[in-house]
Amino acid sequence: MAGADATSTRAQRAESVARWDRVHDVVVVGHGGAGACAAIEAARAGADTLVLERMGRGGGTSALSTGVMYFGGGTRIQKACGFDDSVEEMIKHVRMAAGARADEEKVRAFCEQSLEHFAWISSHGVEFRESYVAEKTTHPFGDDCLFYSGNEEVYPFAQAAAPAPRGHKPARAGEAGGYLMECLLRATDAAGAAVLSDCRALRLVQRADGRVVGAIARHGQETLAIAARRAVVLCAGGFILNEAMVAEHAPELLQCNWRAASPGDDGSGIRIGMGAGAAAANLHEGLVLNAYYPPASHLKGVLVNEQGQRFINEDAYIGRTSDAMVYRCGGRAWLVVDDAIYARTQAMHRIAAVEESFEALERALGLPEGELVHTLERYNRDAARGADPLFHKAPQHLRALSVPPFAALDCSTANSFFGVFTLGGLAIRASAEVLSPEGAVIPGLYAAGRNTAGLCLEGRGYASGLSIGEATFFGRVAGRNAAAHAPWGPA
Amino acid sequence: MAGADATSTRAQRAESVARWDRVHDVVVVGHGGAGACAAIEAARAGADTLVLERMGRGGGTSALSTGVMYFGGGTRIQKACGFDDSVEEMIKHVRMAAGARADEEKVRAFCEQSLEHFAWISSHGVEFRESYVAEKTTHPFGDDCLFYSGNEEVYPFAQAAAPAPRGHKPARAGEAGGYLMECLLRATDAAGAAVLSDCRALRLVQRADGRVVGAIARHGQETLAIAARRAVVLCAGGFILNEAMVAEHAPELLQCNWRAASPGDDGSGIRIGMGAGAAAANLHEGLVLNAYYPPASHLKGVLVNEQGQRFINEDAYIGRTSDAMVYRCGGRAWLVVDDAIYARTQAMHRIAAVEESFEALERALGLPEGELVHTLERYNRDAARGADPLFHKAPQHLRALSVPPFAALDCSTANSFFGVFTLGGLAIRASAEVLSPEGAVIPGLYAAGRNTAGLCLEGRGYASGLSIGEATFFGRVAGRNAAAHAPWGPA
Repeated sequence: MAGADATSTRAQRAESVARWDRVHDVVVVGHGGAGACAAIEAARAGADTLVLERMGRGGGTSALSTGVMYFGGGTRIQKACGFDDSVEEMIKHVRMAAGARADEEKVRAFCEQSLEHFAWISSHGVEFRESYVAEKTTHPFGDDCLFYSGNEEVYPFAQAAAPAPRGHKPARAGEAGGYLMECLLRATDAAGAAVLSDCRALRLVQRADGRVVGAIARHGQETLAIAARRAVVLCAGGFILNEAMVAEHAPELLQCNWRAASPGDDGSGIRIGMGAGAAAANLHEGLVLNAYYPPASHLKGVLVNEQGQRFINEDAYIGRTSDAMVYRCGGRAWLVVDDAIYARTQAMHRIAAVEESFEALERALGLPEGELVHTLERYNRDAARGADPLFHKAPQHLRALSVPPFAALDCSTANSFFGVFTLGGLAIRASAEVLSPEGAVIPGLYAAGRNTAGLCLEGRGYASGLSIGEATFFGRVAGRNAAAHAPWGPA
Repeated sequence: MAGADATSTRAQRAESVARWDRVHDVVVVGHGGAGACAAIEAARAGADTLVLERMGRGGGTSALSTGVMYFGGGTRIQKACGFDDSVEEMIKHVRMAAGARADEEKVRAFCEQSLEHFAWISSHGVEFRESYVAEKTTHPFGDDCLFYSGNEEVYPFAQAAAPAPRGHKPARAGEAGGYLMECLLRATDAAGAAVLSDCRALRLVQRADGRVVGAIARHGQETLAIAARRAVVLCAGGFILNEAMVAEHAPELLQCNWRAASPGDDGSGIRIGMGAGAAAANLHEGLVLNAYYPPASHLKGVLVNEQGQRFINEDAYIGRTSDAMVYRCGGRAWLVVDDAIYARTQAMHRIAAVEESFEALERALGLPEGELVHTLERYNRDAARGADPLFHKAPQHLRALSVPPFAALDCSTANSFFGVFTLGGLAIRASAEVLSPEGAVIPGLYAAGRNTAGLCLEGRGYASGLSIGEATFFGRVAGRNAAAHAPWGPA
C-alpha cells in the first residue's frame, strides 16, 4: 500500500512502473530443484520463460543435497529390485508422513503422478541404477538407488500402509544433488528458458486488483522491472538462514547447528510473496536430523532421555527420532551401544561415556540412579524374546546390549551434528497457486518447494526424498499452470 | 483488493462507502474483558467511543471464566497475606511463562504496571478479599482471592524466579468471571462509551494507503458503515469455535472436548484484522486443561503415559501437564492414586481400573508388563526419601502410594474433560498496534485479548489469570492509544 523502499519486499503497484526493462510470459524466481522444473515445464509449454537466479549459477539447496527423491507406485527400480508398490499404499503412507494437517489434494496428486514424474526426471538424463540397499541408512553412499528412506517399515506407519522402499537416489556416488541439478539446469537451457544469473528478486509488481504482473530485481548495479505477462513462480527456498524469522516462528530450531541451506534460504522468497498479500503457513515446523545411523548396527542401540527413559522406537527415520529429541527431550538424548554394535569407522557422535556396566554408565552420565539400569535391563529382556512392547521397534533391530564396554553417544543438540531446515512458507493449493490469508488465489502468482508450506508439514513423519520430490513435482505443476495463465496486456 | 461480498472479512475500500451511518472517534469490536477495558480507557480519554457487541449483552468469554487475574509485584492482597513479591521476580516468571517466543516489551509492560492495573480494576468496584488459599487448586471455589495459579513453585520455574502467588480471584464464590464483567460493563457505561448490542462487525474500512477508517457491521436487518475517526480496536476473541481454522492450524486441539468459548471465538475478529492486511501469528498454539486436581491430594498421584512411564512433575500447573498429555503422550495418560489420596467427592475423572496391586493395575490397563510396576515402585522409593530425581516434583507432594486399592484415573482426551482455547491471533506490539506480516503498523488499528497473539504464547508455561490479565491490561493500552491516535477528516 505504501511506497516501497530499496529493500522492502512489499509489492510495488503496477502504475509505478514507468517502463518494463524486460517482458516475458513467465518469470521464475530461483533456479534450484523447484525453479528448474517450473522453468522447463513453462518453456516446453511455449511460454517465453525467464529464471532469476541470485547466485552465479543455479542449483540452490537441492544441489547441496543427497539428491534423493521420493517415488513410488511401482517404479522401474522398485520392480527390478523385487518390490511391490501401489499408488494406494503410497497415498496411505504419504498422507501419514505429511502429518495431521496433510492436504489430501496435494498428497493424491504427488502419489498418483509419481510414475510419470519419475519418467520425466529420468528423461532429463538423470540416471538411476536398478539396485537396492537393504541396510538402513540416511542415503546410499555409493551409486545405488533404492532404499527405505522414511518410516515405511516402522511402527506405527507399517501398520497403516504396506511398506515399500521409495527413496530413489540418482546413480552417482556420495551426495548426488549436484548431479541431479546439473541435469535439470541443462534441461532448463534445452527447453529454451532464459536464465539471468546474479540477479536477485526484490519484490513483485501488482495491479490494484491483486493481479501479479511482474517483479523488480537487482542485477549488478541495475534495478530491473521485469514483466511477467502470464505469471511469476516463486521457488526461492525456505528461511532457515533468517535467524530473526526462525527466532520469531520456530525458536526450537535455533539449537540445531547445521543448517541445510544455500544463500537463498534467507526467507526472501516467502517475504516477497507475503508482500503481495500471500499467506505464510506452518512457519513453526522444521525438519531436524541427528544421524546416529549409519552404521546400521546403531539401530540396535537404545535412545534415552535425561531421565534415563526410552522415548521412541530407535529404528524410526532420523527425522522422527530427532524431532522427539528436540521437542520432547529438550534437545538432550544419548544413544547407548555395546561393543558388538558400535562401529568406530562411521560414528560421528562424541562419546559421552564408556563403562563396563550399566550402573557405571548411568553414574558417568549423571542420570537418576537406577533408571538407565532399569531401562537397559528391561530392553535386554525384551530384545531377548524379540519384542518391544514399549515402542514397537522391529524385531530385526532388537538385540540385547550385552558386550561391554557400553558407550553413550551424545545426541544432544549442543554436542552433536543436528541438520535443520524449515517446512513453512507460502500457502499454496495443489495447483501451486498462492493463497491469501483468506484463502483467495492471488492471480498470476505460483510457488513451489521450500518457498511454500506444501506437501510435507512435519518432521515427525518425514521421509528423505519428500522435499526434493515435492519441489520438483509441484515446481512442474507451477510451471505448467503459469504458462497456461491468461496473459495481461497486448500480445 | 477485490470487492467484498456479504460475508467476506476483506477490508472494504474507503471510497466505496457513500455515507457513514455513524461517526465515532473509537470503535471497539467485542465487549468482553479486553473490549470493555479498551472502551473505558478510550471514553475516559475523551474519545467518542462505540462498542459493537454481537450478543444481546457484553461479557464475552471473560464472563464465562473463573475471573482470575494475574497480578503481582506486591499487591495489597499479596502483602496482607504475607507474601513478598517484586516486579523483577514477576518479570522473570512471566517471561518464562510466556515461552520461547516471549515479547520482552509486553512482558515488561504487563509486570511493571501490574500494581497500577490492579488498582484500576479495583476502582471499578471489583472486590478482592485479603485471603489466601494454600491448597493447590485451579481456582478458589469460595470467595477467597490469592493462590498459586501457575508454575511459580514448580520445577524448573521455581529455580528461575522467587515464587509468589499471583492469581487474584474477585470476591465472589464459584466462577467469578460474570461478576468481574458486570463491573466492567457498568464501568463502560459510566465512562460514557456507547454500546450497540446485537451488532456484528463484518469487516474494516480502509483507505488506499492502509489507514483503517471504520468498520462495516450488521445490526438487525441493517448494514451499518461506522466511521472510526481515530481508530478501531479489535477485541473479538479467539478461534476455538472455528473448526476449519483449528483443523488447519492446530489440529491437535480438536481432540479436546470442552471449548472454553463464547460465540465470538469463531475467529471472525482475527479474520477481520487479516482482511485489512494484519498478520496472524502463533495460530498453532493453544491452552489445554485437564483438571486432575483439585482435590489437591491428587497432586500426590503419579501421571503415566501408555508406556507406563512418568513424563512430567505432577505438581505442575495443569496447563503444563495437559500440554504434555496432548503433545507428548498422544492424548493418552492416567493418574494413578491410592486409597489414601483419592477423594471421591471432587474427582471428575472416569476410573479406568481399580486393583489391589500395581501388577493387577498394570494388567487391567493393558500396559507393557512390568513398566508401571517399576515406575510406581521407583516413585515410592523416591517419595519415601522425599526426592524426585526424575522430574523434580516438590517434596510436599511426594508420598508413597501404599494404601490399596490403587486406581487409575483416565486423563485421556477421549475420556476426560479437556478444556481448550487458542493462543494465536493478530500480531500486535506492546502498544496494541496491529502489525502486517512485514512488521509494519497498520495505521488506525489496535487489538487485544485472545483476538491477538499477545503476552501468552504457549500452554506449557501458562498460569491461570494470564489470559484475562493480558486481555484487560492490553485492552486498556489499546483504548488509550486508540483515543490518542490522530484523527482523519474534518473535526
